[in-house]
Amino acid sequence: MSVTAPLGFRAAGVAAGIKDGGQRDVAVVINDGPHHSAAAVFTKNRVKAAPVQWSQQAVADGQVRAVVLNSGGANACTGAAGFQDARTTAEHLAAALNDSADRIVVCSTGLIGERLPMPKLLAGVDAAVAEAARDGGLNAADAIRTTDTVSKIAFRRGSGYTIGGMAKGAGMLAPSLATMLSVLTTDAVLTPEQCTALLRAATEVTFDRLDTDGCTSTNDTVVLMASGASGTTPDEAEFSRLLTEVCQDLCRQLLADAEGATKAIAIEVVGAASTDDAVTVGRAIARNALFKCAIYGEDPNWGRVLAAVGTTDAVFEPDNINVAINGVWVCRGGSVGDDRAKVNLKPRDVTVTVDLSAGSASATVWTTDLTVDYVHENSAYST
Amino acid sequence: MSVTAPLGFRAAGVAAGIKDGGQRDVAVVINDGPHHSAAAVFTKNRVKAAPVQWSQQAVADGQVRAVVLNSGGANACTGAAGFQDARTTAEHLAAALNDSADRIVVCSTGLIGERLPMPKLLAGVDAAVAEAARDGGLNAADAIRTTDTVSKIAFRRGSGYTIGGMAKGAGMLAPSLATMLSVLTTDAVLTPEQCTALLRAATEVTFDRLDTDGCTSTNDTVVLMASGASGTTPDEAEFSRLLTEVCQDLCRQLLADAEGATKAIAIEVVGAASTDDAVTVGRAIARNALFKCAIYGEDPNWGRVLAAVGTTDAVFEPDNINVAINGVWVCRGGSVGDDRAKVNLKPRDVTVTVDLSAGSASATVWTTDLTVDYVHENSAYST
Repeated sequence: MSVTAPLGFRAAGVAAGIKDGGQRDVAVVINDGPHHSAAAVFTKNRVKAAPVQWSQQAVADGQVRAVVLNSGGANACTGAAGFQDARTTAEHLAAALNDSADRIVVCSTGLIGERLPMPKLLAGVDAAVAEAARDGGLNAADAIRTTDTVSKIAFRRGSGYTIGGMAKGAGMLAPSLATMLSVLTTDAVLTPEQCTALLRAATEVTFDRLDTDGCTSTNDTVVLMASGASGTTPDEAEFSRLLTEVCQDLCRQLLADAEGATKAIAIEVVGAASTDDAVTVGRAIARNALFKCAIYGEDPNWGRVLAAVGTTDAVFEPDNINVAINGVWVCRGGSVGDDRAKVNLKPRDVTVTVDLSAGSASATVWTTDLTVDYVHENSAYST
Repeated sequence: MSVTAPLGFRAAGVAAGIKDGGQRDVAVVINDGPHHSAAAVFTKNRVKAAPVQWSQQAVADGQVRAVVLNSGGANACTGAAGFQDARTTAEHLAAALNDSADRIVVCSTGLIGERLPMPKLLAGVDAAVAEAARDGGLNAADAIRTTDTVSKIAFRRGSGYTIGGMAKGAGMLAPSLATMLSVLTTDAVLTPEQCTALLRAATEVTFDRLDTDGCTSTNDTVVLMASGASGTTPDEAEFSRLLTEVCQDLCRQLLADAEGATKAIAIEVVGAASTDDAVTVGRAIARNALFKCAIYGEDPNWGRVLAAVGTTDAVFEPDNINVAINGVWVCRGGSVGDDRAKVNLKPRDVTVTVDLSAGSASATVWTTDLTVDYVHENSAYST
């Protein structure tokens, strides 16, 4: 299903030889209309990859005809030549579609600091356009994998329309976009302004709250395209809920496949004075190396949770904090609570609940444990 | 030498049975005067251990007679009872010295969230006072070790006076104090106000710039005591330089002994618009898990350096950043520079130089690599 679940979209994923092993590495997602409304959100990292710089311009007018994505190279920190490579890629796809380059979004993922092999990439774009079809969503999702072990796809049916999506990302997942790349599609009738508002609302509570390793990528891009092919103008509330569900579904898959992780951890912060406070506290815990090691060791070390909370400027009194790990309130009133021996940390899914006793706002941040395999995988990635 | 290198100080380290293995676990450092000027800096973590809460009050008037330290338990997140334990410890030592409890600094280190075994601790304080001697500095430094594999001590001779110091800390090292505990002593004649100013100036460029794992402890304390026993009123500039050297020396030892580390990494940020910018950028790199894994893998992955720089709000243009790893400028103008194959990452000491091309300020932040052993050690610490 993936990005071709909604009407009006074709997609493909092909092996262009950018990666050594013969895997798929170039994807296209083409919106055949009738509408081409679109919006995108990008990494907040100030060191932005060339395709991000290109795509920010391309999406500015709210019109996108197609997205071209490659794995095997991030085209980041590649200077003016790298930007020209992104532009050339967009122009090449635009020519194949009889469209203009400023309606093409370009996404790249892989190692930073190396130029892309442009002849291979452009030949791959040609092959992808030739293959692009209504059933090509799965191959497209496959082609954008880097260290991902599985493809990530999702879809939801609304009242007379469909939302589809794909994503990739396994490491370098942090706020200000948690995934490196995601393409969302719908055949609902939406204006560009609606696309922007709905996409931001959905990513703010999903991708933006996934933080596996505190590292913010140079390439993060989430793009939403609306073809209008269903002819249905959706109820905004329903569409917003379903789009958020698709993003949430993709986030869960990203979390399940995070590099080297053995635990998927939901950090629920409740009793916060504001949503911002709840997110801040959740992120501080999600980024605490000692806490993440403890969960890897199946050790309900709530002291490390409090030490992480204490580094934030959220509203709380240390003596009023309660912490539960998998439902056992091991810390009450900032001090020793129920018997930590009662905590069962064997399951892969772990829930840490932090009650700040400072208000009624809440938020959940998702992260993973810090494992030996994470270190292995990321110490051997580029060499 | 350690804390008893200067005149006017006695110290001891004894095994009180707080730790299971019969190692030393209680230390005292006693200032026999004639002066008792002192200052201290504490963790900025808002979740402060009971001994920190006690000691902040005790040192407020600039007079400290003695410091009592224990390993084997942090007395953090232990509520009102834990605070009473810290007070009782201070009162006990004060009584043994015929002094008042509000002139006693208390430091604890070890697992968060457990009460201290008070009968053992108080008996240990008695034993330590009985043993306290001019040659007791080494035993005191030994008694405050937790996962430290070696004792950390340092001293410098000034013009007519001496500065000594000891420290402990192997993990949970992050800004706003990088070490868990350090005691500095001098026989110079100093006012409490001088102690405060000189200590802050020294820690700001040493302990505060050591960041091994981004985790800020609940117990960090650095205390400086001046006995005046040398009769020498020091030149402030010389004293400041030597005190900074002692702190720097201790930092180097902490870095060399950091949990599981295989590399000691100096991140030199130059060409910054301000010192704050340089420190911010240095810390962002020091805390980047992917960068730290790359150094562990001896991979000169400069793209991860730029990705970390890009998360900060420092003044820079991405296209003007240069990065050298062990002297090889692998990134020039934000893009590919000299051949990364020329970088030799075999030595334990690694220097990463980041030139922001935005000014003339600079700062160095010290960190370690992220290793399999770090994960092992911290996933098994409390269980």
